[in-house]
Amino acid sequence: MATLTLARWAVALEPTSLPPSVLKAAQRSLYNYIGCAIGGSNHPTVTKALSALSLFFGPPTSTLLGHSQPTSKPDPQPTKTDAQHAALLNGIASHVHDYDDTHLATIIHPTGPVASALLAYAELHPTPISGLDLLTALTAGIEAACKLGLALWPTHYDVGWHITSTTGSVGAAVAVAKLMNLSVQATAHAIGLAATQATGLREMFGSDTKSFHPGRAAQNGLLAAVLAQRGFTSSTAALEARRGWGNVLVCGSTPRLEEFVGQLGVVWETERNAFKPFPCGIVCHPGMDGGIQLHFELAQKALKVEDVEKVELRVHPLVLELTGKKTPRDGLEAKFSVFHGVAVALLYGKAGPAEYADAVVQDPSVISLRNRISATADESLGADESYEVVVLKDGRRLENHVRHAVGSLEVPMSDEQLRGKFVDQVGPVLGVEGARRASEVAWGVGEVEDVRGWVGRLS
Amino acid sequence: MATLTLARWAVALEPTSLPPSVLKAAQRSLYNYIGCAIGGSNHPTVTKALSALSLFFGPPTSTLLGHSQPTSKPDPQPTKTDAQHAALLNGIASHVHDYDDTHLATIIHPTGPVASALLAYAELHPTPISGLDLLTALTAGIEAACKLGLALWPTHYDVGWHITSTTGSVGAAVAVAKLMNLSVQATAHAIGLAATQATGLREMFGSDTKSFHPGRAAQNGLLAAVLAQRGFTSSTAALEARRGWGNVLVCGSTPRLEEFVGQLGVVWETERNAFKPFPCGIVCHPGMDGGIQLHFELAQKALKVEDVEKVELRVHPLVLELTGKKTPRDGLEAKFSVFHGVAVALLYGKAGPAEYADAVVQDPSVISLRNRISATADESLGADESYEVVVLKDGRRLENHVRHAVGSLEVPMSDEQLRGKFVDQVGPVLGVEGARRASEVAWGVGEVEDVRGWVGRLS
Repeated sequence: MATLTLARWAVALEPTSLPPSVLKAAQRSLYNYIGCAIGGSNHPTVTKALSALSLFFGPPTSTLLGHSQPTSKPDPQPTKTDAQHAALLNGIASHVHDYDDTHLATIIHPTGPVASALLAYAELHPTPISGLDLLTALTAGIEAACKLGLALWPTHYDVGWHITSTTGSVGAAVAVAKLMNLSVQATAHAIGLAATQATGLREMFGSDTKSFHPGRAAQNGLLAAVLAQRGFTSSTAALEARRGWGNVLVCGSTPRLEEFVGQLGVVWETERNAFKPFPCGIVCHPGMDGGIQLHFELAQKALKVEDVEKVELRVHPLVLELTGKKTPRDGLEAKFSVFHGVAVALLYGKAGPAEYADAVVQDPSVISLRNRISATADESLGADESYEVVVLKDGRRLENHVRHAVGSLEVPMSDEQLRGKFVDQVGPVLGVEGARRASEVAWGVGEVEDVRGWVGRLS
Repeated sequence: MATLTLARWAVALEPTSLPPSVLKAAQRSLYNYIGCAIGGSNHPTVTKALSALSLFFGPPTSTLLGHSQPTSKPDPQPTKTDAQHAALLNGIASHVHDYDDTHLATIIHPTGPVASALLAYAELHPTPISGLDLLTALTAGIEAACKLGLALWPTHYDVGWHITSTTGSVGAAVAVAKLMNLSVQATAHAIGLAATQATGLREMFGSDTKSFHPGRAAQNGLLAAVLAQRGFTSSTAALEARRGWGNVLVCGSTPRLEEFVGQLGVVWETERNAFKPFPCGIVCHPGMDGGIQLHFELAQKALKVEDVEKVELRVHPLVLELTGKKTPRDGLEAKFSVFHGVAVALLYGKAGPAEYADAVVQDPSVISLRNRISATADESLGADESYEVVVLKDGRRLENHVRHAVGSLEVPMSDEQLRGKFVDQVGPVLGVEGARRASEVAWGVGEVEDVRGWVGRLS
């Protein structure tokens, strides 16, 4: 009954059924998504996809986030395209810097697929959609994706599925179906149509196709909802049937669909969605959080990085296993180097996309500091914990202990930090002024009377 | 190495590398596909998809098979659309009557995904494409899909994947990449991009989504090739990697990729592709083949169906397990009734789509004959074998033994039978004259100098 249970819950969901904390979490998720999608919009992965697919573009109904300012180049890029391609390209952009949100219990990045489908569809909806309705639909989609992810976790990910896109297709379908006001039956068929498009193999990690996954999931879900709206049928037992989504995608293990779908509206996954403060592997974050704190302590003491003899880091073993790259050669490799992350944190007191530019990774002062950092694995530490000691040339020691890294559920990014992140990633695309303006527009979604005009004002 | 081996083989394939019998099989596969796609083009499943998706349609470069004659209705349907939507809609149409081809060793219907992508892309290719080049690309795609199917058979299908679309995505990508003349590297990336879009759950059988699968597979493959052409990367070990396509999609069993990909160009799967003479479950076919033979024997003896007391059928047990429906209520149920199939075969001497119309299924004379047919399971018979006895009211008995049903590899449909099938399915869409004209155009693909204009002349 998981398929129909999910459909019934989504259809019945009202803006007033959302606890204020959930609504707030949804607003923060959407805001963070918009920053990521604009920030990633000029990445080569997006540019390649856009130029490859422009020959298929349909009526320009839907905004390409970050593209709203036509360039003065002889061949200006489009600022809008059809909803299907907008969903794909915004979805790719939102994930391409590995800087998006994370539902920590499943490592799903839920907002990318769901919001990409939702915003693209919203702009061609026949009647006004309030910001509150948009957030409600977004919540429905995020809850759907994360509950399905929990039901299949961890086998599904272990065998090789990119859980963000496999669950994201269904999440996107549920969200768009919600906005369309589909019946329970039609919503169930949309879920089935999305489920049968099981996109995303982990083997693609490290290539352009990784960020293609959430984009394609957005398209899958949008397509599913649009077809179901016209009476296209699939299966109303798509998730739980013997040869349905759950069983097929956990490969002989038993999915816990009833258990988690049964908790819809009781435990809210949207509240358990975290935001990355740094555009790199999440296990680097405690050391970097500590590094930033130590940067300001050094500054307070009028000390410079040149005064530092060495840095000793103690971290969870997973940190070195996943991000132990000692001498990264470029920005992409630096995302998997805790040494680079800690070095820029100490040196600059921040670590945004700019600190992962190739030129920074290859900067002699960064390299010099990186080479003075050593790291030890300590099984007694949590994955979001670190001990860090700065040993000065005069023998003094500055110590720092991060119990839970910023961006964890225990120490969530504050609104101010989220806003700083937004402007920091969007600035290089829209300029600082444009970034601040976009930030204000994006932040205020809850008060918008009709999001159909609002989406185009985001960039 | 399966991914690169497949890519290398496809890139090296030349029209002259194809044995004449393979080229002929490819031509028959394409011809049969075109008849199925036109024949299915006005099915409600296609109509629903077309009306749902028209809001996304891009530049009308590519033919919607069967739609080329604008209707006089106030809201005429388009005759062309962008290549992505043409691939989807033609792919749905080709499978919607369950009347397409079958690679019997894997029960893949290979031509639907591959040809739908290929024809849609061909019309926007920048330079001329000969019919021979088209057939070579088609063969590359069919071989790719079937070899991958063999490598995962039967576990992949057993656990719940619709093998036609999971392998068809890759087949379509290989075929389009071949037509684009992509490098080995780019072809490998196209294979990976197609592989990561693993569409098709068997739970959807019996709904509109079943025929959506080959259509979506065509889109997946086309998208993969178009992106790879622009340098979009995936993984050149996409098929064989630990968390790649093969291992993930056989759920812990071991795919035999090297074995079957290694046989590319040695054993040709295109030659092992069979065509359905009747639009119904393939296990009904031996009894229906016998029924048609007995129809003509009755006619020769100037006997009528009214003279028949009863019909006794002896068949493989699977026939009754899969198609044992004694009193089908409509055309869709009749596809799974060996009794209906044998009744119309005896009564009309043929069993095309017309004999599966609801009105025929509900016709009293058909019902009366159906009720006089009994069937016994006999394990000693092959699945494509049947014994049939017509007992006349005067006590005489006409006996028939079908050793291998028409449409099996042992008794393939003749060119004449294939042409009869084409006109029979296309007639209701284009009229008999239009069907004959389309048949001539489709049959002659091998001599076409530039298929870009030819596709539009098909309907």
